[in-house]
Amino acid sequence: MYHGARFDGWQRQPSGRTVQGTLEEVLSRMHQRPITITGSGRTDAKVHALGQVFHFDTTLKIDENAWIHAFNAQLPLDVKVIEVTFVPSTFHARYGVIRKQYEYLIYKGPIQPFNYETHTCVESTLNVEAMRKAMSVLIGTHDFTAFCANSFKETPNQVRTIMRFEVEESEDELRFIIEGDGFMRYQIRMMMACILDIGKGKLRITDLKTILDSKDKQAYSGMAEACGLYLTEVEYQ
Amino acid sequence: MYHGARFDGWQRQPSGRTVQGTLEEVLSRMHQRPITITGSGRTDAKVHALGQVFHFDTTLKIDENAWIHAFNAQLPLDVKVIEVTFVPSTFHARYGVIRKQYEYLIYKGPIQPFNYETHTCVESTLNVEAMRKAMSVLIGTHDFTAFCANSFKETPNQVRTIMRFEVEESEDELRFIIEGDGFMRYQIRMMMACILDIGKGKLRITDLKTILDSKDKQAYSGMAEACGLYLTEVEYQ
Repeated sequence: MYHGARFDGWQRQPSGRTVQGTLEEVLSRMHQRPITITGSGRTDAKVHALGQVFHFDTTLKIDENAWIHAFNAQLPLDVKVIEVTFVPSTFHARYGVIRKQYEYLIYKGPIQPFNYETHTCVESTLNVEAMRKAMSVLIGTHDFTAFCANSFKETPNQVRTIMRFEVEESEDELRFIIEGDGFMRYQIRMMMACILDIGKGKLRITDLKTILDSKDKQAYSGMAEACGLYLTEVEYQ
Repeated sequence: MYHGARFDGWQRQPSGRTVQGTLEEVLSRMHQRPITITGSGRTDAKVHALGQVFHFDTTLKIDENAWIHAFNAQLPLDVKVIEVTFVPSTFHARYGVIRKQYEYLIYKGPIQPFNYETHTCVESTLNVEAMRKAMSVLIGTHDFTAFCANSFKETPNQVRTIMRFEVEESEDELRFIIEGDGFMRYQIRMMMACILDIGKGKLRITDLKTILDSKDKQAYSGMAEACGLYLTEVEYQ
């Protein structure tokens, strides 16, 4: 679990504070040699996680509970290890993923000192029914080329399946739940931007269909803020 | 309103990021000369505010709404001006206070990336009924010498009145509401530490009475964490 506000994302960088770098620093100190971990995938700067997963190889004789304590005694307070499980050496945190769940939190009102790091704030009225219709267009198996930043060189196949896309509304907030077999770079933030544009009446459902069908990276350039996005669950076979 | 986590408290300091210093910087830039503001009182490092009040003198011809926008366009996101009102020159943000309200938030569980800056986390079971009895002992007019850090030289009269001291319990959290005619340095955090000690069974109600009656600064040294404390309201005549 991590609060993304003061991290430059998951992936280790030569400079900059990252979640991977922070975890590897603890592990390398414990092993007295450099340890590399493998996450289920990257998260962007300021994106949060409640259920990120990573694996690493170790020769240390420490039981699962003691691992949790060893991590949390050394980690800063904005990242915390919740669970540790021994897995067969065939387990791979990235290639073994069969489903990922994210949530996206909208605060319905002005940006405030107590929400600017945890929510995307939207002051205009949102048409939730129109957004639900837009979400149903995206559910299923589609070529998401128009809704991601990956080049074809790095990701030749941009077909992905979205199994669930729902929104729960409360007095102050909208909580979007998104599940899929995998998401490409900026995919959720670009889809969310388009859905918010529809909620604000700036785009229509037919515009969304046109963008999706175009399979053209120039068709849409919106991207919702990172601070509202949470990686909530990663499922393995 | 301010999120206290990245402030070294309210009061301006030669170095260190403070709420007063941040507000004065904006005002001094607008007036092109140094401007000093007067708050209703100080808050400690990491303490939050939902309703802090300050006053200042100005010669600028800006209406109340435009003041709000001018502040918030220049302030960082962890401090926000909610309301601006013109007052007679007799108004004084500190001396005019007749009542102050604070809240203290306890998260009933382990410290996590999403609560460590906004709650005090308590993992042990708390006896809420015993805490309510302890709070009722503190309601009324008392000499709070044993529950504050002020010296007699700076604060000769350490008698204060607490009008309200309540706790609301929900599944995850305890929300204490404390109202008084004024509070001395560390008073709320020392009272809260004592009440939590009673909730944990480490102290009894009779111990609290003995400490209060002692009027002795050595009688009790507990101090609850700053991150759970919120200044919620300041009332004037």
